[in-house]
Amino acid sequence: MTAPATTFRALHANGTLLRLPNAWDAASARLFESLGATAIATTSAGVAWSQGYADGYAMPIDVVVAFAKNLVRVLQVPLSVDMEDGYSDDPAQVADLAARLAGAGVAGINLEDGRKPPELLARKVQAIRERLARDGLDLFVNARTDIVLARLVDEGRFAEEAIARGRLYQSAGVDGLFVPGLTSPAQIQAVVAGVNLPLNLMAWGGLANAAELQALGVKRLSAGSGIPQALWGQAAALATDFLQAGDSSKLQGQIPYAEMQKLFS
Amino acid sequence: MTAPATTFRALHANGTLLRLPNAWDAASARLFESLGATAIATTSAGVAWSQGYADGYAMPIDVVVAFAKNLVRVLQVPLSVDMEDGYSDDPAQVADLAARLAGAGVAGINLEDGRKPPELLARKVQAIRERLARDGLDLFVNARTDIVLARLVDEGRFAEEAIARGRLYQSAGVDGLFVPGLTSPAQIQAVVAGVNLPLNLMAWGGLANAAELQALGVKRLSAGSGIPQALWGQAAALATDFLQAGDSSKLQGQIPYAEMQKLFS
Repeated sequence: MTAPATTFRALHANGTLLRLPNAWDAASARLFESLGATAIATTSAGVAWSQGYADGYAMPIDVVVAFAKNLVRVLQVPLSVDMEDGYSDDPAQVADLAARLAGAGVAGINLEDGRKPPELLARKVQAIRERLARDGLDLFVNARTDIVLARLVDEGRFAEEAIARGRLYQSAGVDGLFVPGLTSPAQIQAVVAGVNLPLNLMAWGGLANAAELQALGVKRLSAGSGIPQALWGQAAALATDFLQAGDSSKLQGQIPYAEMQKLFS
Repeated sequence: MTAPATTFRALHANGTLLRLPNAWDAASARLFESLGATAIATTSAGVAWSQGYADGYAMPIDVVVAFAKNLVRVLQVPLSVDMEDGYSDDPAQVADLAARLAGAGVAGINLEDGRKPPELLARKVQAIRERLARDGLDLFVNARTDIVLARLVDEGRFAEEAIARGRLYQSAGVDGLFVPGLTSPAQIQAVVAGVNLPLNLMAWGGLANAAELQALGVKRLSAGSGIPQALWGQAAALATDFLQAGDSSKLQGQIPYAEMQKLFS
């Protein structure tokens, strides 16, 4: 049996843009797998909300692990877990969580720098690599840099900073670079040329479509929390109407009960 | 502090139709509470799918309890848990689960007869009442009869059978009667007149709206799995498009990130 990380790594190197409609619960994960997703990645915001926590390092680690184990249980395709910043500034703690996820059958992780120094993320990645090697485990480690989302540098310097951080993270042992919020085709091309790692972008207003991104050399496109935010927007509209008018005919566009059941049979 | 069951019971007796846009995870529960829902009830199908199980007695009991505890943690309003058939034919086992839920702060439960004899549900309810009394706990116990959903009798006999079962369940100690699938105004009126329990109906094609149901004497209206099925239908459409075209502009109608965050702050 091929290790999940090996299968997942290969999906970044087959010449096709890997498209990840991020999941936030077992239903969305199984649904997206059934629709042809070749891997499932989680959205940290979607998962946190669905589990009853704010996005941003609030989920207890045991909840993160239990959630991942449950998705591994229902999925056949590789699972990548967004573990935010690893929920700690201590590289050993972050490596411990990564090893727990790898041991549970997870194929990959996202780990972000946020507003912390890039050197801290590099140290976390090094600790993860050492720990996984020691334990005979493997993960596709995707380094997410928040330089765009958190506006850590001026817009004109996005590519330059992404390249510098990408190279640092690569030397620490990551498998991929994730720059959510980057949309400029020229900057995307510069990062693809400047960092020898599969580049991952996130669905974002003004971003080119999948075919165009593939032509630019991007290897992975994530929906982020776009799908659950669209759905919870729709949930709010349906619930508001239900609370006011209680009109049964408004619950349209339903997936058949039997189709949902089939996902878990 | 008023016990959750007391608060929830009063919501069935204030002259207004109680409207429950059923929730399936912490995000939907908090969202619906924020929109004015005076109580949150779960949809067993929605919860089961979201947790990665088929609907219909497949969820492990520890998952049911952990899920309920997590919703109690994030909600201020009363929570009612659909515990399907109690996941056992042994009344003592079902009473044990009900007591665990009541102890966790749950205000009410749904318990269904399904295709089993009504006498079995009556024995489960009796066991629950005895156990709760012994432990000094309370729950609003809503008996769900599946005579319509499972077509246990001919359509012309729905009201007659609902009345017979409603009276049996009332003598066993239930607080309410739930007849999902019942839509005929004449049959609804007959059940309201024939059983001295708050009548609960479920959103269903052809069902009258909230104002008309309130005029008929119905006390509670549940959305069932209608909202999550509508959303997962939308999720399938969005994910299919994302997997094919990866077009960021399609992720419309989103609830703002900050609004979701506010639910858990």
